[in-house]
Amino acid sequence: MDWPGRTGGLYYGGDYNPEQWPEEVWEEDVALMRRAGVNLVSVGVFSWARLEPLPGVHDFGWLDRVLDLLHEGGIAVNLATPTASPPPWFGLAHPDALTVTADGTRLSHGSRDTYCVHAPAYRDACLRIADALAERYFDHPALAMWHVHNEYGTVCHCDHAADAFRVWLRERHGTLKALNDAWTTSFWSQHYSAWEQITPPRATQYLPNPSQVLDFRRFVSDAMLDHFRDQKAVLRDITPDVPVTTNFVLGDWVPVNHRHWADEVDVVAIDHYPSADPPAETAFAADLARGWASGKPWLLMEQAVVTYTGPRMVAKRPGEITRLSLSHVARGSRGAMFFQWRASRGGAELWHGGMVPHAGPDSRIFEEICELGALLPTLVDACAAPVEAGAAILVDAEADWALQAPGLPSSEITCTDAVRQAHRVLYRHGVTADLVHPSADLSAYPLVLVPALYLICDADADNLRRYVSGGGTLVVSYLSGVADEHARVRLGGYPGALRDLLGIRVEEFHPLPPDVALTLSAPETPNALNAPDDLEAPDDLNAPDVPDEHTATFPGPRGETGTFWSEHVHLEGAEALAVYTGPHASGTPLDGRPAITRHSHGSGTALYVSTRLSDDAYARLLGLTPAPVELVRRGDWFFAVNHGDEEQKVEGVTLPPGGYAVRTHDDLDLDRSASRPREWR
Amino acid sequence: MDWPGRTGGLYYGGDYNPEQWPEEVWEEDVALMRRAGVNLVSVGVFSWARLEPLPGVHDFGWLDRVLDLLHEGGIAVNLATPTASPPPWFGLAHPDALTVTADGTRLSHGSRDTYCVHAPAYRDACLRIADALAERYFDHPALAMWHVHNEYGTVCHCDHAADAFRVWLRERHGTLKALNDAWTTSFWSQHYSAWEQITPPRATQYLPNPSQVLDFRRFVSDAMLDHFRDQKAVLRDITPDVPVTTNFVLGDWVPVNHRHWADEVDVVAIDHYPSADPPAETAFAADLARGWASGKPWLLMEQAVVTYTGPRMVAKRPGEITRLSLSHVARGSRGAMFFQWRASRGGAELWHGGMVPHAGPDSRIFEEICELGALLPTLVDACAAPVEAGAAILVDAEADWALQAPGLPSSEITCTDAVRQAHRVLYRHGVTADLVHPSADLSAYPLVLVPALYLICDADADNLRRYVSGGGTLVVSYLSGVADEHARVRLGGYPGALRDLLGIRVEEFHPLPPDVALTLSAPETPNALNAPDDLEAPDDLNAPDVPDEHTATFPGPRGETGTFWSEHVHLEGAEALAVYTGPHASGTPLDGRPAITRHSHGSGTALYVSTRLSDDAYARLLGLTPAPVELVRRGDWFFAVNHGDEEQKVEGVTLPPGGYAVRTHDDLDLDRSASRPREWR
Amino acid sequence: MDWPGRTGGLYYGGDYNPEQWPEEVWEEDVALMRRAGVNLVSVGVFSWARLEPLPGVHDFGWLDRVLDLLHEGGIAVNLATPTASPPPWFGLAHPDALTVTADGTRLSHGSRDTYCVHAPAYRDACLRIADALAERYFDHPALAMWHVHNEYGTVCHCDHAADAFRVWLRERHGTLKALNDAWTTSFWSQHYSAWEQITPPRATQYLPNPSQVLDFRRFVSDAMLDHFRDQKAVLRDITPDVPVTTNFVLGDWVPVNHRHWADEVDVVAIDHYPSADPPAETAFAADLARGWASGKPWLLMEQAVVTYTGPRMVAKRPGEITRLSLSHVARGSRGAMFFQWRASRGGAELWHGGMVPHAGPDSRIFEEICELGALLPTLVDACAAPVEAGAAILVDAEADWALQAPGLPSSEITCTDAVRQAHRVLYRHGVTADLVHPSADLSAYPLVLVPALYLICDADADNLRRYVSGGGTLVVSYLSGVADEHARVRLGGYPGALRDLLGIRVEEFHPLPPDVALTLSAPETPNALNAPDDLEAPDDLNAPDVPDEHTATFPGPRGETGTFWSEHVHLEGAEALAVYTGPHASGTPLDGRPAITRHSHGSGTALYVSTRLSDDAYARLLGLTPAPVELVRRGDWFFAVNHGDEEQKVEGVTLPPGGYAVRTHDDLDLDRSASRPREWR
Repeated sequence: MDWPGRTGGLYYGGDYNPEQWPEEVWEEDVALMRRAGVNLVSVGVFSWARLEPLPGVHDFGWLDRVLDLLHEGGIAVNLATPTASPPPWFGLAHPDALTVTADGTRLSHGSRDTYCVHAPAYRDACLRIADALAERYFDHPALAMWHVHNEYGTVCHCDHAADAFRVWLRERHGTLKALNDAWTTSFWSQHYSAWEQITPPRATQYLPNPSQVLDFRRFVSDAMLDHFRDQKAVLRDITPDVPVTTNFVLGDWVPVNHRHWADEVDVVAIDHYPSADPPAETAFAADLARGWASGKPWLLMEQAVVTYTGPRMVAKRPGEITRLSLSHVARGSRGAMFFQWRASRGGAELWHGGMVPHAGPDSRIFEEICELGALLPTLVDACAAPVEAGAAILVDAEADWALQAPGLPSSEITCTDAVRQAHRVLYRHGVTADLVHPSADLSAYPLVLVPALYLICDADADNLRRYVSGGGTLVVSYLSGVADEHARVRLGGYPGALRDLLGIRVEEFHPLPPDVALTLSAPETPNALNAPDDLEAPDDLNAPDVPDEHTATFPGPRGETGTFWSEHVHLEGAEALAVYTGPHASGTPLDGRPAITRHSHGSGTALYVSTRLSDDAYARLLGLTPAPVELVRRGDWFFAVNHGDEEQKVEGVTLPPGGYAVRTHDDLDLDRSASRPREWR
Repeated sequence: MDWPGRTGGLYYGGDYNPEQWPEEVWEEDVALMRRAGVNLVSVGVFSWARLEPLPGVHDFGWLDRVLDLLHEGGIAVNLATPTASPPPWFGLAHPDALTVTADGTRLSHGSRDTYCVHAPAYRDACLRIADALAERYFDHPALAMWHVHNEYGTVCHCDHAADAFRVWLRERHGTLKALNDAWTTSFWSQHYSAWEQITPPRATQYLPNPSQVLDFRRFVSDAMLDHFRDQKAVLRDITPDVPVTTNFVLGDWVPVNHRHWADEVDVVAIDHYPSADPPAETAFAADLARGWASGKPWLLMEQAVVTYTGPRMVAKRPGEITRLSLSHVARGSRGAMFFQWRASRGGAELWHGGMVPHAGPDSRIFEEICELGALLPTLVDACAAPVEAGAAILVDAEADWALQAPGLPSSEITCTDAVRQAHRVLYRHGVTADLVHPSADLSAYPLVLVPALYLICDADADNLRRYVSGGGTLVVSYLSGVADEHARVRLGGYPGALRDLLGIRVEEFHPLPPDVALTLSAPETPNALNAPDDLEAPDDLNAPDVPDEHTATFPGPRGETGTFWSEHVHLEGAEALAVYTGPHASGTPLDGRPAITRHSHGSGTALYVSTRLSDDAYARLLGLTPAPVELVRRGDWFFAVNHGDEEQKVEGVTLPPGGYAVRTHDDLDLDRSASRPREWR
Repeated sequence: MDWPGRTGGLYYGGDYNPEQWPEEVWEEDVALMRRAGVNLVSVGVFSWARLEPLPGVHDFGWLDRVLDLLHEGGIAVNLATPTASPPPWFGLAHPDALTVTADGTRLSHGSRDTYCVHAPAYRDACLRIADALAERYFDHPALAMWHVHNEYGTVCHCDHAADAFRVWLRERHGTLKALNDAWTTSFWSQHYSAWEQITPPRATQYLPNPSQVLDFRRFVSDAMLDHFRDQKAVLRDITPDVPVTTNFVLGDWVPVNHRHWADEVDVVAIDHYPSADPPAETAFAADLARGWASGKPWLLMEQAVVTYTGPRMVAKRPGEITRLSLSHVARGSRGAMFFQWRASRGGAELWHGGMVPHAGPDSRIFEEICELGALLPTLVDACAAPVEAGAAILVDAEADWALQAPGLPSSEITCTDAVRQAHRVLYRHGVTADLVHPSADLSAYPLVLVPALYLICDADADNLRRYVSGGGTLVVSYLSGVADEHARVRLGGYPGALRDLLGIRVEEFHPLPPDVALTLSAPETPNALNAPDDLEAPDDLNAPDVPDEHTATFPGPRGETGTFWSEHVHLEGAEALAVYTGPHASGTPLDGRPAITRHSHGSGTALYVSTRLSDDAYARLLGLTPAPVELVRRGDWFFAVNHGDEEQKVEGVTLPPGGYAVRTHDDLDLDRSASRPREWR
């Protein structure tokens, strides 16, 4: 593939929906795009009704003019297949292709994304419009990329879905016997004696079968991937040299296993809308994307000019658009794209913001958009080398999904919280982390964190053993290794798959109420060390050069605390680094028992953390020192971004509040360290 | 019309449901009514099943006896068509006429209000029972008024509704092209190519189209009004001289635009159930009703003897029944009616209370009912002149509905909060306000407030300009003038429709989190005045005669604060009265920028308030002084009600806690100022 | 019946689901059961799919082997009919027999309990599998008891349910006229003119009819009881000597009137899962079960080895499994059973815990299970005499259900809270209470509490009058006696049915907001006594021997407070023990009015408490002194359990924290007082 494409540098632009505006606006659009430095726009994402106003009747004239105009302006096009939003006529003609919820409600047209990916009529209609677009524009000079569909994520429970689910199950499990075993259908009399008895997890009287729910989620991901592959095949056939992608949407609710999808897209592309803590969330999302892309470049396909926090949108602070975009680029994005070019006048997302806001180009937002557009082309050299990571964090969508089941020991459990904490701790201490799957080659990482990896298959557990044997340092947190790939508990003591590696056996979980904190103290027995010196940040961790006034002792003289979770741990080869004490442990089986353990395995070390630590305690356990700014290294270059309100020094450069620097250590660099707080009109 | 009817004075009574009681109770009822001074009762609101026990089979005998008994007792009848509660046989015979929810659930009989106003079978059955009632009682001497239906408010999403919606849309928009443009269907591929593709906003995958939702709500109001008009035509034809009304129910959820309905009823009638702050809510509801009635008399058709607060009913305090009724009468109601005469023994509302409670007439409640019945006839003279208002507040159901859309910049936005605050501030400072539509003639008002009038058409915006040009003072609050009549944002800067009038341009909204307050300070530039002297309450505002120790300076020396909302305002002709400062503004684009502005336009002044003020600050901005009691003037008369726990003096009269006075300034009056706190048995 | 069965002593065991495990585990199971002292297991509760893998095709071989193995191990079998969990094939063949929710959603297979008890196909299938089981195992030596179904509780709203509901209503009410009268269908035009117009309370537009809802709940209980009776008849016919039971599940949502069911089961059996306060909840559940069993032995059929609190499961503290089991046995259970024997590896309840946990027998939990198994056989003598109760608390499921209606004066009302408070106050003060129906013979009780008995029929009210006339002390709390058996308010003043007995008339309810407390003071009038000496705990109350430093004066010199509820009470023969005073009463009709009253009636006394007291104030009113440990007396024996963290002395025995004692007063006893806090591995 010819990616990162014909622009040669970084992509800059956003979703462009010209069909929302009269044609006289289009020329102004192109002129403003040029002023802003835009070089790529996603066109046609929601254009199906305009492109095919009646079934089989196409209207491409307007799009011809749009693409010509853009090309004349030097702007490349990421052309979308519009299949995420079928037109009203589609649902009227094919009611069986509209989404059905778990309780049997057939949804209606009236929003977007209302379709059933398993319905033949929908699949056919999608292929036809994709084919028509490819036939029309295969040789248009503006065509730079294909953007298939949009944010795959609609789950359907209809009979088409049921049929497809059964086919998928037959393929996965082979026999009904194997399925009954994998799903433990012996519980609650759920044994299936014929394939047609199996349905999606629809509304039922009480708790659903968690293995059925997990398999359904896997199936939905695969079925949607099949829908993607169909379109990709059509496009590839006609335009073999144009990269094909789709934009991943992030979130616990998304029924897509992006790791599997990453193998099928030519470019990993994500949409990212941070909420409460934009800098940390941006680093996390970017590191996820880089993990899916196996370290190769990827693309931030959508972000917003404002922040959506749930209850309200929050205006970005001066320079924040640039800082967050820079963070994405530093972590591997080949550009910065937005939703959308021009804020809509009406429709459901009229308040979504745009690179050109309702107020027009005479605005702070558009001014910042132009500044970012000027910055990006100067960063090409800095992006040549791969991102350097000092640690890996293991993630797996299937483990995350399994921890979304009802009936867990605590309803407050989420995999995401644990994963985000692990990432946040490394991020705030200057360690760039790769977010990778447990099956990945881990040998290059000095440190690997395993947060709440509930479900793990035997092969992946072996991979972890190999990593530690070879000298690695592995830190496993509570709720890891508990279940097999069918979400069945591994018997004989937790964390089943990792007991030998960790040298422990857990006999009982003790979830903690919100107001309870257990004290973690140094053990009195001589076999437990107070200072895990071998856990100080290895020299090759790319931590910032903060003076080392921090001495890695854990737990410190005043102890630490554990919250949310605790476990009844037996040492079976490991030693205790900390034990449970204090008033809340007293009188319980936990009193004086191991809370954090260390085990030597081959040339490496495996730690187990049976409770939730504070971010600070987690960092002390890992021997990290705080990093005042975001810092990412790529070969000779480093990217430093000061998201805070205080001036900071890093790598010899002084960064004012909100300032950033991209430079080499030889100072043959692009220096933005002089960037001042902006004065606003 | 012969309204306020044959009683000559004020109406007093309530819903009377004799069919719930054995006939031997009826005579006691009439005797108690006479004791209480009741002169009007609403009969038959829920009597359909009794009047038409089988389809087409009528039983009027019992109602004949009821009406005769009442007439003999000198009590007039407000006779209801019972169409709000179809009998069980109706739903069984016509399942297609039962309500369907947005997710497609067909509701069942079992409560009240379960009908589809668009279903032919229901429309026919309604007309038949209305006709039978009119034919039966057209010449009954007790008949004083027709009460059509009850609290219109059932929304249906069935196919009948869809058909009717399409007809309505065709009428409103003319062409599909116009509809597609009004709804911005170019967003998310919602373009309609045939009318039959359009449905009510049913359950769909994600956010609905806000313009579709708004039009559906308008349609439902019109469709229910059509249902009302049908019945009215039948009744008018047979009893041309009997006024016809229906009772409006208040609340954000009500899909009725009462302003349009007010033109169709002979008497505006409202049901009012205050909750957290009964005195202020009562003044608000009464001023709303008077606005709908264009200043003419209206009628409080239902209130309760207890207060319903959501989580619990609260017993009214001694005298509260009288005080709140008096407040309604002072503000234009031609009487005070209750739901219901006698508390029910069973059924869904058995705890709703009644003028005769479960305990019977030997009770505090019935004693107070008798006292109120004795008071009302003495108030006739005081009600002769119209209510005098010192300000207008602009309200529009469509603007309110548009601000109930999902996807707004803040999910906490409600129009109601802003409107109620504006009214409450005036109410607490002795200024009686008319609540009128933006198209109303405003020329007589010294002050007009515009709170969160999100949606405004060009003609109404022109009306505001004319008002200010002619010398008026207009105070516009945040989120006004933003959208056009189709809920599409007006481009180029907020508040689109009013930018020139206000002399400002807003480029960006900054909704604030709950814990953030921005400081509002006097601007340092010389063109901004500290004391908006021209905003002191005009002499013709009917404020109470509180000593003027209050000096209208805004913001005061210690500043004010703005919460909930803020905006990035540019002056384009206006001057700043206050600017954003303080720690939460620092580092944002708002720092030092205008928060409140003033602009001269023609002979008048237009202010803009871009944030939410506290009630006190709002009053200081308007130059108002607190009023310790409720005070309403009508010609020579004034009504003064002391809702508080302290003795107060007003207009030379001393009001004890809970006391009231209705008198002229010549002291030729009805003086209740001596009313003492009651001693209870 | 031969109950408590062939084991001769106390039952010990749990649900055993061998079909979840390979056969090689079964032998280990029996060995471990023997080690633990298990003598009874419930088998086959969820085995339908395994027993009848295809319609009409049975597979009993595996169960033969299981029963043989158990019998060889000396373990008896409580054999279940598996009808609570129909297999997947059943729903596929009979979709009309799947549950339908109130909004018309037809539920799907995928959990458990998804059936319609009114569907003929389901009824037939249940009888067939019950018959096949009985024919197969009628003479198996292991068979000790039949466990029909599981936790009856699935409510269906389908047309089968509607048909059956109409038949039931016809039987209950006789005529439509009687039904219309009972349901007050004159309200809201709900009069039924034909039986087929009546439906279950399905989704409707607004509030449902509360009498319809109540009758539907009664009907569901009766219909499920009919389902139980059908199976019982089949089993009884084949195995006339084997006791038949089903396990009652507790909770407000359960649509089962256990009092009626108790007459039909040979053994009352309950499942008990305490949550926030396990000791008090255990005493309450056990006293309920004993009440249903009319004082005869009953059986704790399910408990868990951990505590489920809603948000999280909580590990039981050392010894807690034994202490709670002992409390059940002390209060009449003939044993202690668990769900389940071996924690499941998969399925919806894989985290439910088990007597053998995931970690296996080498665990604290299994060790405690073995200890309990050793203790139980030693308790047989202590269980010979009946439990001695010092008071009765009146409970009625129908009154509870009636207080779950919408539209009550406060949405926070629950019957359960009031009943649990009454029980908790007695429990914490050493008084064992029987929880009995208002129709029970009360003559033996020195004290009877009536908490929130909203609904009461005339005959039961007479029963209370007889009780007081005969010398009893009755304490009636707010919201009692208000309604008749059709949930219709009794007119003329509350608490209608009990006004004469209490010597009061209440004219109005005053529910209180959460932050309001009314002061309760001694009345100033001479007819009211400060110290209700006659209320000191009678000598025959079995309170623990705490030194009597507590003087029963109520209200004390500093007064008490009332929260949540208050009433406007008139004395009609009673005297006031306390009156409402304080700032929140001031200015309301309650100021100085009676809050708590006492009335002599015949030889006894009837008190009325019109507000909610604190637990402490309630105890002071009753003249009780705190009891530091749980204490239950049976003949010469007493059971003492110290659930707390402090050493306590009781009846001359010193109980360490967590300790217990079962002994006679002659010290010829089983003494566990030396039980020490355990030291855990």
